[in-house]
Amino acid sequence: MKTEENILIIGAGLCGSLLALRLGQRGYNVKVMERRSDLRKENISAGRSINLALSNRGIKALKMVGLDNKVKSLCIPMHGRMLHDKSGNTKLSKYSGRDGEYIHSISRELLTALLIDEAEALENVSFEFDQKCDAVDFENNIARFTHSKNGTTLDCEANRIFGTDGAGSILRKSYLSKRKFLFDFSQNFLTHGYKELTIPATKEGGYKTEKNALHIWPRGDYMIIALPNLDGSFTVTLFLDYEGGTYNFKNLDSEKKVQNFFAKEFPDTLELMPDLTTEFFKNPTAPLGTIKCFPWQFQGKNLILGDAAHAIVPFYGQGMNAAFEDVFEFDAALEAHHDNWEAAFLSFQQKRKKDTDGIADLAIDNFHEMKDHVANPVFQQKRTLEMALETALPKTYFSKYSMVTFREDMGYNQAMLVGRAQDKAILNMIENKAIDLNLPIESIYETIKKETYLILEGEQDTID
Amino acid sequence: MKTEENILIIGAGLCGSLLALRLGQRGYNVKVMERRSDLRKENISAGRSINLALSNRGIKALKMVGLDNKVKSLCIPMHGRMLHDKSGNTKLSKYSGRDGEYIHSISRELLTALLIDEAEALENVSFEFDQKCDAVDFENNIARFTHSKNGTTLDCEANRIFGTDGAGSILRKSYLSKRKFLFDFSQNFLTHGYKELTIPATKEGGYKTEKNALHIWPRGDYMIIALPNLDGSFTVTLFLDYEGGTYNFKNLDSEKKVQNFFAKEFPDTLELMPDLTTEFFKNPTAPLGTIKCFPWQFQGKNLILGDAAHAIVPFYGQGMNAAFEDVFEFDAALEAHHDNWEAAFLSFQQKRKKDTDGIADLAIDNFHEMKDHVANPVFQQKRTLEMALETALPKTYFSKYSMVTFREDMGYNQAMLVGRAQDKAILNMIENKAIDLNLPIESIYETIKKETYLILEGEQDTID
Repeated sequence: MKTEENILIIGAGLCGSLLALRLGQRGYNVKVMERRSDLRKENISAGRSINLALSNRGIKALKMVGLDNKVKSLCIPMHGRMLHDKSGNTKLSKYSGRDGEYIHSISRELLTALLIDEAEALENVSFEFDQKCDAVDFENNIARFTHSKNGTTLDCEANRIFGTDGAGSILRKSYLSKRKFLFDFSQNFLTHGYKELTIPATKEGGYKTEKNALHIWPRGDYMIIALPNLDGSFTVTLFLDYEGGTYNFKNLDSEKKVQNFFAKEFPDTLELMPDLTTEFFKNPTAPLGTIKCFPWQFQGKNLILGDAAHAIVPFYGQGMNAAFEDVFEFDAALEAHHDNWEAAFLSFQQKRKKDTDGIADLAIDNFHEMKDHVANPVFQQKRTLEMALETALPKTYFSKYSMVTFREDMGYNQAMLVGRAQDKAILNMIENKAIDLNLPIESIYETIKKETYLILEGEQDTID
Repeated sequence: MKTEENILIIGAGLCGSLLALRLGQRGYNVKVMERRSDLRKENISAGRSINLALSNRGIKALKMVGLDNKVKSLCIPMHGRMLHDKSGNTKLSKYSGRDGEYIHSISRELLTALLIDEAEALENVSFEFDQKCDAVDFENNIARFTHSKNGTTLDCEANRIFGTDGAGSILRKSYLSKRKFLFDFSQNFLTHGYKELTIPATKEGGYKTEKNALHIWPRGDYMIIALPNLDGSFTVTLFLDYEGGTYNFKNLDSEKKVQNFFAKEFPDTLELMPDLTTEFFKNPTAPLGTIKCFPWQFQGKNLILGDAAHAIVPFYGQGMNAAFEDVFEFDAALEAHHDNWEAAFLSFQQKRKKDTDGIADLAIDNFHEMKDHVANPVFQQKRTLEMALETALPKTYFSKYSMVTFREDMGYNQAMLVGRAQDKAILNMIENKAIDLNLPIESIYETIKKETYLILEGEQDTID
């Protein structure tokens, strides 16, 4: 049966490549069509990628396909947020009070290439590049492609089609435009956009600033972050309003203005980024959008996964992890339903939707937390307390960040509900001076737990 | 200046016709292009209209164009909800405790025809029918039309283009698909659909049931409503799940099943609707969707209003009223900005967005209230108390329903925030037996006011 089933995957990004590898391992005939050129052979457009932070949910999926060890050589551990204030002072805020809980900076290109190599090594999986999908006839499961170099068109029919073609998914656009069923859809943009910049390596190939951290320059209305690369450089991202506020992408229209902005707001970055103004005007400004939709599948014939189904803003470092967890969950659904596609599609989307909605909302929350709250004294008190709790009670206490990032056994939705209530409880208690830090930590924990529970109860007590 | 400004309105429904009339009154050259045939000459597709309930916000806009008196002859007052239980008992729940506060059943066709007649009577306003808009080039302000009867195509260029082309707006779809700016968009469907049925007039042309009420058969998972027409008939709407629950549009697939469903759930409707099963299978089942988007305009050149910008579900009877209030608000913006279009477009959308978001959410709330809560004893206690409050304190107390429906001086958003908090306060107090009905009504009011205030305060007290 499996050899008779032909599978087409549209998009050989991180999600599509992992899916191809997994379905190949399950014995299916898989063809993957990718719009871009083969990134293993050509230098792909830079300046619009945002570094990736790999964490437990992603690693769980890589373990499923047997790549957890191979991927280690591509990873740079980041133990916490390195906060840079306006005077250039830095302070490390750890991600967890538990040993061994940290996230990994990883290159999108290298990780994708690894996944493609592994999938392509299977005899039942093949890739074609430079194949741009123009439209999908999802009722008859035929996708049309145009070769971006020679212009030839090609119709691909398959028993199953997977749309892992990212935020601009053609399969999803077909669901929306053909109006063959009730399709819930939303796209929402932040008023901020982003631009990538670079901190180059030292002449000796070393790191100009702390290697094992995610650097943040939080300034309220805007922020800069930087993640380390294997070659000693850092990829820097500026998040700034398109038009609003004192400084924005519209009014920073000369090298002098950019230079002055950075000198005033991020003085310690000037010597780290010698090519700042050149890069600022050379690199594109890209939008930050959230996409939600439902359903994700049509009659068991085709399915969207990853960004195609739920594109999120990058502020929780969970976009790739969520897409990888999709593949993990979809594999589990296939297993549970003995490779019955329609049943697997239905149970996958039913279970998964609330979790991807959750991480979408959490990622927007974290935008505000990162650019603003991390520099706030009450927030810092909370983080200090949470570190103490996680260190003293490593098996019992988990901050919202830890639940989202390190608890791959817990769904995003659950992490969001409990995490938000717990945050609210702690912040209320700090603001009302209701926490006595002289008490034993177990007793502080019990109070937080009780308050969190009351908040969760209160939220369910709505008029219905 | 005004005579040199050519205005194109796409869509001669209620919103477009009123807008044409108002801009005509302001002295502009206005052309209106409508997809359907002229409803004054041809019998337009029935079975998909849902009766309209005209209330204060709509009347405010009709007063602006001088039609408040003419419209009266088309109106049938509805003083409250006539609730029908499973045994056929009825009970009137009034909309307000104040005299003179009620809503009006009105025919979409007659009201639209009146607006078109009035607009067309102006020498600077003209209408063309059977002109289907295919696409709008919103950067160059050119709209393309195809004549639905002879197939000829036509490009219309205008200084300003207004999209009043309803929930399926072509101008809005152009905003979404062309991706020339960051366009927030969402469409969300209820799992319920609706189907129209009819209670015909008596042989003598009278009403088979109470004329001056909006009839509701609330049954939790589904409901029927009926609104009176001038000819003695009622337009009936069944709201039912497409696929879920015991009864749904999918499994009611035979005349016998439909007959049994109505006999069990709505026994008193059987003799009112002799053509029930014929109509059930003849009339279409239509979806119930909410559309939100932003921005509503492009560079002061074109603007969407009414359902095109904010389609809502019909459960608050505010779709038309909101569209009419759009025209009222847009006229005020034009006035305030001395007919500077770009300034008027910007200030209109800025002020109006939160209010149309509010009524969209309220309309979904009211779906649950109508099909379910109105039959709940606590809810009925609340309504009784609110009637007493509105009667005793007519200038001070306003229920949520009254704020939304009868307070045309208050924005929908404000009505939603205060109304929801007040509902929560009263329901909590009733459930906790915290209201002593032996106390003077002023004292009960003061307690509700205080509780409402505390809830509003608490909701603002989030982590930010």
